[in-house]
Amino acid sequence: MKEPSSTLRETDDEARRLARILLRSARYAALAVLHPETGFPFASRVLLGTDIDGVPVILVSALSTHTKALAADARASLLTGEPGKGDPLAHARLTTQCYAEPVDRDTPLHTRIRTRFLARHAKAGLYIDFPDFRFFRLVPQSASLNGGFGRAYILDGGDLVIHSEANDALAEKAEAAVQDLVARHPDLMSTLTLRLGAPEAGPWRIYGVDSAGFDMISGDLLMRCEFDTPAADLDHICSNISKIAYLIP
Amino acid sequence: MKEPSSTLRETDDEARRLARILLRSARYAALAVLHPETGFPFASRVLLGTDIDGVPVILVSALSTHTKALAADARASLLTGEPGKGDPLAHARLTTQCYAEPVDRDTPLHTRIRTRFLARHAKAGLYIDFPDFRFFRLVPQSASLNGGFGRAYILDGGDLVIHSEANDALAEKAEAAVQDLVARHPDLMSTLTLRLGAPEAGPWRIYGVDSAGFDMISGDLLMRCEFDTPAADLDHICSNISKIAYLIP
Repeated sequence: MKEPSSTLRETDDEARRLARILLRSARYAALAVLHPETGFPFASRVLLGTDIDGVPVILVSALSTHTKALAADARASLLTGEPGKGDPLAHARLTTQCYAEPVDRDTPLHTRIRTRFLARHAKAGLYIDFPDFRFFRLVPQSASLNGGFGRAYILDGGDLVIHSEANDALAEKAEAAVQDLVARHPDLMSTLTLRLGAPEAGPWRIYGVDSAGFDMISGDLLMRCEFDTPAADLDHICSNISKIAYLIP
Repeated sequence: MKEPSSTLRETDDEARRLARILLRSARYAALAVLHPETGFPFASRVLLGTDIDGVPVILVSALSTHTKALAADARASLLTGEPGKGDPLAHARLTTQCYAEPVDRDTPLHTRIRTRFLARHAKAGLYIDFPDFRFFRLVPQSASLNGGFGRAYILDGGDLVIHSEANDALAEKAEAAVQDLVARHPDLMSTLTLRLGAPEAGPWRIYGVDSAGFDMISGDLLMRCEFDTPAADLDHICSNISKIAYLIP
């Protein structure tokens, strides 16, 4: 067997798409922070959500070490992409270096993130409003994609953020528009899950929408579908979804 | 619902046992290190093994970021304990703060670690002897056990290390002695897996033995069994295993 290549591969759209999917479809992640007392790196598990601009968000308790760490030093790292069967290192994973930004309560930003987070993590409703819990946006600065042995790529933070002027408008209305689309086409979800090769785990539903794609959930499973062409508005999102479901060129 | 307790629980033998199992039965871990150029925490995935004294070991390439990081700053953190079904935060996990010690090649220590690592990760044989790959022992300094909501414990590094003068002798001979025990008792493995509640994944076999317990493997699955009483020698290990299998008081 030859030794794996030591060189990074050139980052292409395929790598960027895989990285986005690894970040946006992760239910949870390993979070690395700097321990506020010892300066040691400190790894812990967090539930993961995303904001409308694709920025990952975490919901953490002020009592926990990672929250104290982020309050003292905003530098953080997320590891996403869980191994399946076989060699754990043969499965793709992504390390994202981020700056953590606390999200103030009683702001439109908090409301938006809270709504999106609950759509993904319904059980977080048990503690999401406890006074010691807060959200952080983890804004990507750079990332390392490891697609398996000898398949390493470096990404810019901007590769993982959705740069769209439509973000705010979509956050308000995309969800309802897509639910309406689904209601008007009773076969849409079954067709979509077939096209996307979703595991036959049970009924899938769309729970998150943005200009770059949409998220589906079925029990413990999440899927992320990235559009080939980012959408500029609601109609564009709906037509993108219909094209995928009905193979419209 | 009441807010989860904010206080740490008193660390007891039950917590120590759970922590040891989470560390010693992990096929892989999230490793957090300090990025050698930026100082950011950096999270990546590594295969995990253990040395005869229970110290976790990793096999990493000199070309990778985490290896360069450990060469520059030995402080590291391991997250072990993978979530099963349901809420990821309801599953126990362990954060272990460690100092990384490189393992020199062509030493008895390297031979011992290499043998144990291959017994757990057979596929690593494809690259274990590449010149850019090396082992680190990650010597525990302290650890945080999160057994689920409101169940947090702090451990000493020493709680995760096997302090036995028999370690070196056992490393040489325990494996053969246990294989002999298994050969003499054809029903031993099936009885053990039943007693330990091992998933019926296929045939299980013992692949690692030390004075604190033993490791079993079946395909992608690992199990760790910790003895109630640490063993002082080979006979004691074999009698401990027999007691578990045959419910000898």
